Amino acid sequence: MALRNAFYAQSGGVSAVINVSACGVLQTARQHSRQIGKVYAGRNGIIGALTEDLIDTSVEPDAAIAALKHTPGAAFGSCRYKLGSTHEHRAQYERLIEVFRAHDIGFFFYNGGGDSQDTAYKVSQLGADLAYPIVCVGIPKTIDNDLPITDCSPGFGSAAKYVATSLREAALDVAAMSRTSTKVFTLEVMGRHAGWTTAACALAAEQEGDAPHILLLPEVAFDEERFLAKVEEALARHDHCVIAASEGIKGPGGEFLSASGLKDSFGHAQLGGVAPLISSLISTKLGCRCHWAVPDYLLRSARHIASETDLQQAYAVGRAAVEFAIAGRSAVMPAIRRLSDVPYRWDIIAAPLAEVANREKLLPPDFIREDGFGITAAARRYLAPLIIGEAYPPFKNGLPDYVTLQNVAVPKRLSAFAV
Amino acid sequence: MALRNAFYAQSGGVSAVINVSACGVLQTARQHSRQIGKVYAGRNGIIGALTEDLIDTSVEPDAAIAALKHTPGAAFGSCRYKLGSTHEHRAQYERLIEVFRAHDIGFFFYNGGGDSQDTAYKVSQLGADLAYPIVCVGIPKTIDNDLPITDCSPGFGSAAKYVATSLREAALDVAAMSRTSTKVFTLEVMGRHAGWTTAACALAAEQEGDAPHILLLPEVAFDEERFLAKVEEALARHDHCVIAASEGIKGPGGEFLSASGLKDSFGHAQLGGVAPLISSLISTKLGCRCHWAVPDYLLRSARHIASETDLQQAYAVGRAAVEFAIAGRSAVMPAIRRLSDVPYRWDIIAAPLAEVANREKLLPPDFIREDGFGITAAARRYLAPLIIGEAYPPFKNGLPDYVTLQNVAVPKRLSAFAV
Repeated sequence: MALRNAFYAQSGGVSAVINVSACGVLQTARQHSRQIGKVYAGRNGIIGALTEDLIDTSVEPDAAIAALKHTPGAAFGSCRYKLGSTHEHRAQYERLIEVFRAHDIGFFFYNGGGDSQDTAYKVSQLGADLAYPIVCVGIPKTIDNDLPITDCSPGFGSAAKYVATSLREAALDVAAMSRTSTKVFTLEVMGRHAGWTTAACALAAEQEGDAPHILLLPEVAFDEERFLAKVEEALARHDHCVIAASEGIKGPGGEFLSASGLKDSFGHAQLGGVAPLISSLISTKLGCRCHWAVPDYLLRSARHIASETDLQQAYAVGRAAVEFAIAGRSAVMPAIRRLSDVPYRWDIIAAPLAEVANREKLLPPDFIREDGFGITAAARRYLAPLIIGEAYPPFKNGLPDYVTLQNVAVPKRLSAFAV
Repeated sequence: MALRNAFYAQSGGVSAVINVSACGVLQTARQHSRQIGKVYAGRNGIIGALTEDLIDTSVEPDAAIAALKHTPGAAFGSCRYKLGSTHEHRAQYERLIEVFRAHDIGFFFYNGGGDSQDTAYKVSQLGADLAYPIVCVGIPKTIDNDLPITDCSPGFGSAAKYVATSLREAALDVAAMSRTSTKVFTLEVMGRHAGWTTAACALAAEQEGDAPHILLLPEVAFDEERFLAKVEEALARHDHCVIAASEGIKGPGGEFLSASGLKDSFGHAQLGGVAPLISSLISTKLGCRCHWAVPDYLLRSARHIASETDLQQAYAVGRAAVEFAIAGRSAVMPAIRRLSDVPYRWDIIAAPLAEVANREKLLPPDFIREDGFGITAAARRYLAPLIIGEAYPPFKNGLPDYVTLQNVAVPKRLSAFAV
């Protein structure tokens, strides 16, 4: 039997280490050249499969593939594009199979969050329906850490390290200046539904009184009065207050605070930003000087301060995906299983995609401090190992030396398909 | 003659390396214990001198002083507090001399930007007026890089490295997602009057077409129409556009864009943020999805990505300040003199405070590209060496291990003084 090729795509918001998983997939596939043919990557995620815009990774030299380990972003392009349900959008799924058939693709690797695992699961089912044999393996990735079963999601540990480091540094700044300058600093953190990244900010604090003094988690309804009282308490104690606020905090009615309507001077609705809103509130109600930061994409692409643990896990899930595929295990996702907290030990297990897809893992109640403004010791025990270890990229001319792949297109064999 | 003590204070916005200069001062003073007595630090900058709130640095172990080299913030506290003119606020200056006399302080080191150099200069003059012998030495520090004479200001190189690294990383994110997600990303950069830090973002680009595609410098009046045309051009070429915008960009009338009035839903004026404003403008006028980041204090406290060159210079100016003082050279500031671009070679000279004080160094016209949206080769030649070299802090439990000094107060000898 001729070797069958593989398809790999990156999906959803990128992370500092999604390319590390790609590296794990590609290096492992190259090591198994008797089981797997070429690996084609989708340009811009699954869209590349639908439009038959495939990238031939086999022309990339080993050194370029190795350099993916230290390069953030998504080397082949990613996308926000969710395939619909298999019965309403069956044409899309059939097109995928058509493309796979045209390029003799027998392995489907989809690297992303919950939606992507759902897609991988559907493709596995449809392959069976259409009598097209394809092994489908999801590869976990999300800085939001909201995938179930796996101990954590690759990308999260680095985001956590970034926010905790940045908050610790900025807090030193605020503490040094609060006598005559800013009293309250708010760091806005990504994670619209799950508060994992916001919770990770608490790792910056080692002792009672250390920043952050307040966490605003999306799992806890925002209560203005209680919040302001907490800010006042921190100011009384420390003369300054450092807050980590999730972009997804919601009012008592469940509406996003960020949607509560900032307008610019032309009356245009203002884009995003919970931190400016929180700062406005404090400055208006408590009359003190506030500063805020919204790192936005800086947070999820900060490869320069990635977690070595995260890096190892990102690689391991990529490698395991290929190993599972070679073993013929379809409709699974390599998941990280925690064996111990201290020292942190883990291994990789196969999670059934049916159990992973479309399930969002929020902060459990026992990770949230009773007052809602902080985390518990259990949460800290969970989070602490995930940021351990530094994994600096190489630098050239004072800047991280990131690789750009050639991304050579595979000649098309089919007619066009509109997405 | 008994040894006279020294006073050292940190002033204005902090940086990733102002404590490195403090380390240079303290270690050098300890090496010259036959010329200089104790070094007292002002708690919260010059306010510590006015209120006689002095910190006895002599009780800090050598290891703690050495750890200042890798600790951001301001170890003794800083302040935004400008002493007035010597004739209108003579009482303040007389109080300074009174405190110095009470603690036998013969050396005054003031570590800050333009205002601080002005203060150091005035103290030197007043000491002479009041027949109180005191050697006054300014120590340069500002991430804004707007001090004259010196090739650059300690703090700037690290801020430059931070913004160029962050922009390069975030740009990879945007490029990977622009097919279906964000098309335009705006990074807001500190520097209200001088565009040095915004200009440094351009170091992220190595080849034609690399991000950032547009710089918005405070030295160039913001022209909405020309700007939007430039964004459209970048979108047409690259399908995405990355912008670095100074917080201090001004409209044609000279007014700060950030002051043009964001209001929250309660009608409160919104605090700061040029990037959200720019993003709103683009999203309204061009109808594409925008994201923005405002790193704010993260930018100036990011010791984890400090420039080794900056670190060396920050230390050198601290050391030279003490050496100048011992040599009896008053009313000077150690300044960095560039000897060559490649390799970057520099030494330290003494700049007269009279020539440093209150002079702001903006981007020179020949550093700004003709269209106003970028920098010239001359600017790149100037900027490139300043971000060279990495100088990671030690990490513990996955986070930078920063020192907190004991900051033991020197017993007061005088009555209180209100500031």
